[in-house]
Amino acid sequence: MEIKVMKNILGANQQRADNVRAMLRGHNTLMLNLIGSPGCGKTTLLEKTLERFKGRCNVAVIEGDVASDRDARRIQAHDVPVVLINTDGACHLESISIEKALAEFDLDAIDIVFVENVGNLVCPAEFDIGEYAKIAVSSVAEGDDKPEKYPLLFREAKAVVLNKTDLTGLCEFNRNTFMESLGRLNGRLPVLEVSCRNGTGLEGWFSWIEEALRIYTGSGPHIT
Amino acid sequence: MEIKVMKNILGANQQRADNVRAMLRGHNTLMLNLIGSPGCGKTTLLEKTLERFKGRCNVAVIEGDVASDRDARRIQAHDVPVVLINTDGACHLESISIEKALAEFDLDAIDIVFVENVGNLVCPAEFDIGEYAKIAVSSVAEGDDKPEKYPLLFREAKAVVLNKTDLTGLCEFNRNTFMESLGRLNGRLPVLEVSCRNGTGLEGWFSWIEEALRIYTGSGPHIT
Repeated sequence: MEIKVMKNILGANQQRADNVRAMLRGHNTLMLNLIGSPGCGKTTLLEKTLERFKGRCNVAVIEGDVASDRDARRIQAHDVPVVLINTDGACHLESISIEKALAEFDLDAIDIVFVENVGNLVCPAEFDIGEYAKIAVSSVAEGDDKPEKYPLLFREAKAVVLNKTDLTGLCEFNRNTFMESLGRLNGRLPVLEVSCRNGTGLEGWFSWIEEALRIYTGSGPHIT
Repeated sequence: MEIKVMKNILGANQQRADNVRAMLRGHNTLMLNLIGSPGCGKTTLLEKTLERFKGRCNVAVIEGDVASDRDARRIQAHDVPVVLINTDGACHLESISIEKALAEFDLDAIDIVFVENVGNLVCPAEFDIGEYAKIAVSSVAEGDDKPEKYPLLFREAKAVVLNKTDLTGLCEFNRNTFMESLGRLNGRLPVLEVSCRNGTGLEGWFSWIEEALRIYTGSGPHIT
C-alpha cells in the first residue's frame, strides 16, 4: 500500500509537471531548477546571475526552503520578482507548489524563471517540477566523491556548476576524480567551474544560460 | 490517505526505534547518529575518531549511503566492524535497517556504534533510529545560516560538530551568526569546533564522546 501511494504521488506530480512545462512553453519562459547540497552556493550563484542579466532579460525566482525567508530576502534585494515556497519541513519541491508560485508572475514578461530547490542532493532529483533543465550545483569543499555517492542528480542534470574553485588545494578535492566519475554517469554533461567568491568562470555559466535560452526560444539571440 | 500512511510509517519506525534503544541498553552499547550535509566531513570525522579510540574501546560503524560503498571501504581500512546500508535512493535511515545492521555485530563486545546517516540535513533528522544522540555535523564551508535554514536537526541534536575551521576567513562564515542562531534554537547545545584536516579541536570532540559514554554506562571512566 505504501508503494502504491508513492506511485500515486509521483504520478500526480509528473502529470502536473507536464502541464507546467506546456504552460511555460506557451509563454516562451525558460525554467531552470537548481539543485545542490546545503551550502554549495546556490543563492550566491543566483545573486551573481541576477546581477549579470539585470537590464538584459527579465528574470524571476522561486525560492524553496524548509524554513526561513533568508534566501528569498537576499534575492528580493536584487529587485526581481520572487516567490518563496516554505516547505515546512519537506525535503524537496513538487510541481503543485511550482504551479501556484508561477501564477504569481506575469509570465509573458519573464524570460527565465530560476528555481532554487531545497538544499538536498537526494530528494529534489526525483521530482520533475516542469523545468526545462535541472542544474546540479556542487562545490569543491564537498569533495570529489559526490557524483559517485549521489548519482541520480548527476544523471538527471543538463549541466553541473562546480562552485568554490577558489578553495582548490585547501580541500580534499581531486578534479580528475570528480570529472571521471561524472563522465561515467553522464558523459555529455557540461561542467561550469566557477568561484562565486572571486568571479572566476562565471562567464561560462552565463553563456550556458544564454545558449539554453537561444535553443529553448528557437529565436536566435534573445538577450540584448 | 497520504497523511495517514506517513503517520503509519513514522509510528512503526518509532516503535522499532524504541526496541532498538532498549536492546542497545541491554548490551550497554552507546549509539551515536551522525547527520550532516553531503561533504561536511562525516566520514573523515569518523576516521579520526576511529584512530583515536583504537585500542581504547571497541567501536563499530553503520554506514548509510544512497549508493556506492565508498565510505564503507574507507571505514573498513581502519579495521573495525562495519555494515553498509545502501538505501537505493532513499534519503535517510530508518530503524528497521538499523535493527538488521546491529544484528551483524557482537554487541556485548562493542562499546560504541557510530551511524553515519545519508548526507542530508533534512530527512534524517525526522527519523529516530534508536540512537542515544543525534550529532549534527556542519562545516564552515557551508556558511553560517544552516541552523536557521534547517532548524529541526539542530533542535534534535545533542551536540554539533562544526568542521573545516581551517577554512575560516576563506568562506562567507560569521561564527557569531552561527552561534547566535544555534543559541536561539537550542541554547544548551555544545558546539565542538574542529578541523579534521589539521586536527585542531578534535580532542574536544573525543572528550564529548568519552563523557557521553560515562553518562550512558553510569560506570565511571570506561575508556582505558
